[in-house]
This record gives sequence, C-alpha cells and structure tokens, in this order.
Amino acid sequence: MSQRAVGVGLVGLGTVGTGVVKLLQRNAQVIAQRLGFPLELRRIANRELETGHGLELDGLHFDTDVEGLLADPTLDIVIELIGGSDAARKLIHTAIGNGKHVVTANKALLAEHGAELFDAAAARGVDVAFEASVGGGIPILRALREGLAANRIESLHGIMNGTTNYVLSEMEKTGDDFEAVLARAQELGLAEADPHFDVDGVDAAHKLTLLVAMALGAQISCDAIPTEGIRELSPVDFEVAREFGLRIKLLGIARPRPLDGGGRRIEARVHPTLIPAGSLLAHVDGAMNAIAIHGDAAGPTLFYGAGAGAFPTASAVVADLMEIARAIRRGFAGRVAPLSYLPDHLEPCSIVPLAELEGRCYLIFGVADRPGVLAQLTALLAEHGVSIEAVLQRGGSSADSVRVHLLTHRTREASVQAATAAIARKTFVTQPPRMIRVEEGF
Amino acid sequence: MSQRAVGVGLVGLGTVGTGVVKLLQRNAQVIAQRLGFPLELRRIANRELETGHGLELDGLHFDTDVEGLLADPTLDIVIELIGGSDAARKLIHTAIGNGKHVVTANKALLAEHGAELFDAAAARGVDVAFEASVGGGIPILRALREGLAANRIESLHGIMNGTTNYVLSEMEKTGDDFEAVLARAQELGLAEADPHFDVDGVDAAHKLTLLVAMALGAQISCDAIPTEGIRELSPVDFEVAREFGLRIKLLGIARPRPLDGGGRRIEARVHPTLIPAGSLLAHVDGAMNAIAIHGDAAGPTLFYGAGAGAFPTASAVVADLMEIARAIRRGFAGRVAPLSYLPDHLEPCSIVPLAELEGRCYLIFGVADRPGVLAQLTALLAEHGVSIEAVLQRGGSSADSVRVHLLTHRTREASVQAATAAIARKTFVTQPPRMIRVEEGF
Repeated sequence: MSQRAVGVGLVGLGTVGTGVVKLLQRNAQVIAQRLGFPLELRRIANRELETGHGLELDGLHFDTDVEGLLADPTLDIVIELIGGSDAARKLIHTAIGNGKHVVTANKALLAEHGAELFDAAAARGVDVAFEASVGGGIPILRALREGLAANRIESLHGIMNGTTNYVLSEMEKTGDDFEAVLARAQELGLAEADPHFDVDGVDAAHKLTLLVAMALGAQISCDAIPTEGIRELSPVDFEVAREFGLRIKLLGIARPRPLDGGGRRIEARVHPTLIPAGSLLAHVDGAMNAIAIHGDAAGPTLFYGAGAGAFPTASAVVADLMEIARAIRRGFAGRVAPLSYLPDHLEPCSIVPLAELEGRCYLIFGVADRPGVLAQLTALLAEHGVSIEAVLQRGGSSADSVRVHLLTHRTREASVQAATAAIARKTFVTQPPRMIRVEEGF
Repeated sequence: MSQRAVGVGLVGLGTVGTGVVKLLQRNAQVIAQRLGFPLELRRIANRELETGHGLELDGLHFDTDVEGLLADPTLDIVIELIGGSDAARKLIHTAIGNGKHVVTANKALLAEHGAELFDAAAARGVDVAFEASVGGGIPILRALREGLAANRIESLHGIMNGTTNYVLSEMEKTGDDFEAVLARAQELGLAEADPHFDVDGVDAAHKLTLLVAMALGAQISCDAIPTEGIRELSPVDFEVAREFGLRIKLLGIARPRPLDGGGRRIEARVHPTLIPAGSLLAHVDGAMNAIAIHGDAAGPTLFYGAGAGAFPTASAVVADLMEIARAIRRGFAGRVAPLSYLPDHLEPCSIVPLAELEGRCYLIFGVADRPGVLAQLTALLAEHGVSIEAVLQRGGSSADSVRVHLLTHRTREASVQAATAAIARKTFVTQPPRMIRVEEGF
C-alpha cells in the first residue's frame, strides 16, 4: 500500500462546503493518523469566486468550471454540495460516469432519485456516500448499516430537523407563538427565509425515506409519507402537554407492519407528536437531532447530535471521504450496500394509512362558552367509540369561546377522525378541531 | 464474488454465547440480505455440554474441544466468549496463529493486552474485532473509529456500566441504601455474586482505556486510571443533589490535556459524578449505558443503549462478524485500525493527577451538633481557598451529630483535598468527609 494521497474535489462552496475545506485543513494530521495516508483537497468549483471569511485556498485549483473538475484525472472523489435537485442529479451522474466516487449531503435528491444513482454507481464500481444527509454530525447511517446490521429494526422515532426542534423548544420556553419564534430563528440564521421545507416537515420526510430503506429494507415514496408541520401549534398546547406529563416534538416515525396474508406495509409519518416527558427524546432541545431506534437484539438505542451546521455536516462528509479513501487504497468499492440491504432486497412497500393507527390522541376544540357544550362534545366522542382519559378547559381567544383540551385513551385513528368531523359540523364549535398524536413505549 | 458462506466458530456458550447462537439463527435472513451471503455458525466449543433453554444446535459440531475448533479449516472467524484473562489471551493468540479472525467481548483482556493482540493480528493479516466490549449493543466503537473519524475528540463522558447505573437509579428512586439495592440487583441477575468489578469501577476503567485509545490515540494503563466506585454513596446524597439541580452518575471521563512545552497528558478517571439534572446523561436510568462525546467538528454527540445482556451484546458480536465477513469476501483484513489510530500514532500518555483538576465539588461532613461548628468548618475551607456556593444541613445518624452538605465554587482539587484533610483532623468531625466531583458543560 503506497502512501500516495487520495485526491478530492469539491463542488459548491457555501456554508457546508466552507466547513469541509476548513475541517480538512485543520484536522489533516488526525485524519492521516487514522487513515495512514493524506486526503488531499485539490480542486474546488463554485458558481462564484468569492469565498467566506478566513478561507485559505492557496495551492488549490479554484474556479467556476464544474465540468472540468468532474473530468479531472487527479481526483478520486467528488463532493457534491450544490444542493437542489436537477443540477445535482446531473452532476452526480457525470461524476459517476467519469469513475469518480461521490460524497453528498443532498437528502432531497437521494430521497427522490437515490435508487437510480446507487444503481449507476454500482454499475460503474464507485461509491455514493451520504452520511451528512441525515442527522448532520450524528453517524446514524453507519449505525444502521453496520453497527445495528444484525438487528431486525422494530421502530424508529427521530427528531430529524433542527430548525423545527429549535422553534418548538423556544415556543415551549417562552410561550411565544409560532410566527414570533420563527422570525427570531430566521434572524439567528437557524431558519431559511423560505422555511417551507423545514416547518412543513418536508425535510424530515426526505430523511425518513432514507432511514426507512436502511432500517427496514423498504422502498417508499417520500411523497406518500403523511406529513404535517408545526405551523398549527399554539403556546397553550405546550402548557397542556406539560400538565399531561408530555412534550411536543416533530417526529419522523417508522415501523414495519406485517400483513396477515404475508408481506408487509410500512408505518411512516412525520407530524407533531406528544411523547412522555421522561423519555430521552423529550430532552432533546434546541437545534439538535436525535434518532431512537429499537432493534430486536440491541433493544432501545438513541443517537444524538447536531443536525445541521457547517462543521457537524463537514464531520459527516469527511468521515465518508475517509471510508471511500480506504476503499480506493484497497482497490475496491461497494464494501457495504449504500442502503444497508442489497438492492435486490430493497422491497417496494406501501404506507399504512393514518386512519389505521392506534394510540392516544390529544384533541383541541374551540367551543362556545355555554352550559351543555362539554356534555355534547363528550357524547359525540363516546358515540364514535373515543373514550377520554383527561380533560382540561382553558380560556379561548374571545370572551364567549373556550378551549377544551382532551387526552383520549388508546383509540383507532379512524374513530377520532370521524368524531372530530362530526363535532366540527356542530354550531357550538368556534374553531376547527386539532389533533396531535401521542407516541410512547419507544 | 461467490455466494459461499463464511464459517464461524464459537468458544464459550454462556449467556452471551447463547444469545449469539440464537441471533444468528433468528436473523439469518436479514443478515444475508445485508451481506449478500450467509454467516454460517459451524462449530461450538464449551467446557460443559449442557445448553440453555430453547437452544437448537442440530447440525452443529458441538463439543469441548477448543484446540480442535481453533484449528478447524472450515472456520474463518472465531468468537471468544470465555471471558477472563489468561485462557482467553492464549486462545486468541492460537486463533490468530491459525489465521482465524477473532471477535471478542473481553474488555478486561483488551484493556490489558490489546496492543499485543492487535500486533499479532496485523502481523498475521487477520482482524480482532471487539464492538461488544464497550457499551453492549451501542455501536460506539464504530462511531469513534469511522463516524467521528474526522474529529479531534475534546471530551468523553460515559455511563459505561449498567449494573452501577441500575443501582444508582434505584437508590435515587427508592431512598434505599447501597447494600439493600445491590442485594435486589443480585436477585434480579443484574449484579454478579461478586460485584467488585462493577461497583468499584474496574469494569468502567477497562472500557475507558479502550475508548481513550480510540478517541485520543493515547495508550494509558488502566491500572493508572483514578477509579472510585459507588459503595460510599448514601441515599441523602441523592436528595441533596436534587436540591442542587444535579444527579449522581458513575462516569468514565476523558479529555486530552496539552502540556505547555508540547506533548500532552490525558485526563482519565472513573468516579461518582454530579451532573446537571437537565443534561441528557442525567436521564439515562436503569441498566442502560450512554456515552457523550464532544468532537471539535461534530460538537456534542451522545450514544445510548443497553450496556449488557445476551441479545444487545450479541447484536454487537454479530455486527463484527458481518464486517469481518465482508473483508474476507474482499480478500483482505485490517481495513480500519482496531484502535482507530494507526499503531504508530498510538502514543503512550500519562494521566493527569486528580489534584490538578478544577471544578465544583460536593462535600459531605458529619459534625457535632453544637454552636460554632459550621463557622469553624467554613473558615477552614476559606483558609484553603475553597469558597462555597450552597450549604444544606440535614440530620445525621445520631442525635448529637448533623450532616453538612456543601457545594463549592470552581476550585482546584488540591485545595479541596488539603481543606478536607485539615477538617478531618478536627475533634468536631464525627464522620470522615466525603467528596463527589461535579462535571458540567459536556
């Protein structure tokens, strides 16, 4: 084994790209002490030739020529950090076609076109690595693919989006409403100017698609995942949750659900979720991520860390570079299947409809403040087979309206949906009913 | 790549060995779906030929002939699960000499003789894998070796022993004393008949030795790690800790400590520790483990799971089998350095003396219940430069004695030691002073 460096090229010099450059420079020694040879960043291509503060690019080939970089024979690995879908997809295909290994953090692209890219890479004998695409600096994909590889995974519950977890933590702490906290998060750079991908759960659904493949060997369409964001939550929800011994988190949740006649469907969903205040996930605050995985052998496990940010993401990108560099030195690629299961064993699966879920629910009704309304409300719930564990009544937004907060016993979600639909049609209802699911026992 | 199975032999059919057999049988399909070929357990050697309940060994070669197993040409990998030191060491050397890869869970052996075994394996071109030796089912060694490989590790705080964490959780919950809770743990099979290794911190020190090598590239002697167990803790400590906003955990702690003139020492220690009640580690209860690692790039991370038990440990053993099986199929071994850093970069390091630590301390004094004693006590602390953040006085064991609980401001430990030594000599002292260190900011 010669001590020749492995050559790396980077496309995209935004926040994460800058972090990768700095990390490769700063930790070159510790990286070489673990690898036995250096990783050499040789070339960077970016749309613009301005760089961030303190970036030292002397001796590097730095220009706007992406095609030139992808064809550069001195590069073994290309890092794609331009984001987005079409251009990134084309870029990765070109890199693969040129025999380059690829490292990317692009979860949206992989959730939608992963199979196609992994197939192309396998055919060309190169690797596509993507640890940075889920859970930022947490080595969660490696944990699923190798550390827990002997397990049948029974459930997965994850706080997978740092922006929303920050917003929820702040709403809970300050009592401020969603819009106010989001504005602060945007000022702090913790939320995008257009927060849709984060606050509506889209980003979490992309990540869940990848985790479902790796944990369960199941191919699902990320568009088919029932996905609900955090815009509808109000400060009083957090207060009431606390009184019920619960906390609210935006979770991505997945479980295999065997069908009676053989085969299986996948329970996969993203929504605000009430979880026991004593659980570890409930203590994950601020812009952090954590993924709780239950394996049939390992039992409950949890992986916690920063879900985003230049250096945490760079930590994952460089870990992938190191793994691929080892493979290059050994003269092979494809040591581990990218989605943990061999492609033949990745099975297209349908997703369990929410109506078939069973669990406790937290319901919020805005109703007229007059005698008999609570009796009518609970009677309608009872008619639909929804029984109540706890009730809490709090002042509403107007003088003649009150908010009723209910925690149900375990119920089939179809019953809850039917009951709330029936209640919503009543004249005593002043605001559309809302529902937050409770998850426990993970 | 042929689809020929990789042959596995197992020495030692105790609790974990039985778990490994069951897991290989139960999850054969998912393992093959991830590997692309089967792992075949072909032969078991054990001192006794009785097996646990429900174990199905049809078609397996099962006898007491360890030497025969180690020489069996149909085996590629040998699992060592006999525990202990001398016999296991000899067994692993023989296996390596015979060209077998080895998987072991034997932390005591590796902490003391790891370097020698890894050298022998590298010389023979085989792997020695040991994920099961630290943190049971948590893939913590892989996380350090690969997932966080781009990081300089800045600190490591771990609950590494499930038995002691169970005992501490129960003492806190029930208010019962150490002996009573230990007896219950022994009845439940959560503590050994001779609990010395667990409750005196020896097991945690073994694990810390391995983690220090992998996280910091530092070779330390596990006998040199300052190690204190949990026997001295009393129920009132937990009450007082709670009033101070802290919880008590037995932690293994490590940090690199650069020396002014270049080079470095390692802060490495195992002792009962007060940690902020709001930290994730403080919420790790019962027989669970968790390791918090701070990387310079990834930032704070935490890895949580079952620290022991047949199936969690088997989960880690089989993950190692799968990784080695992949290497065998690719015709090489030694893809990753066993202790993360290449052997040349594992540097012998000395350990920072406890007297040089700086931090808050919790002090417990039993003193005579008469006027002026508290004034004398605090005057002696002040004389030694130890200033006090909070004081709490509680009834002592006898009518004319009281317990004084103090939380100090940040102080050098040498000052605290000098102060408590001076106080211990006073006639008003009715019980030897005790000290528990506070750790924060991880």
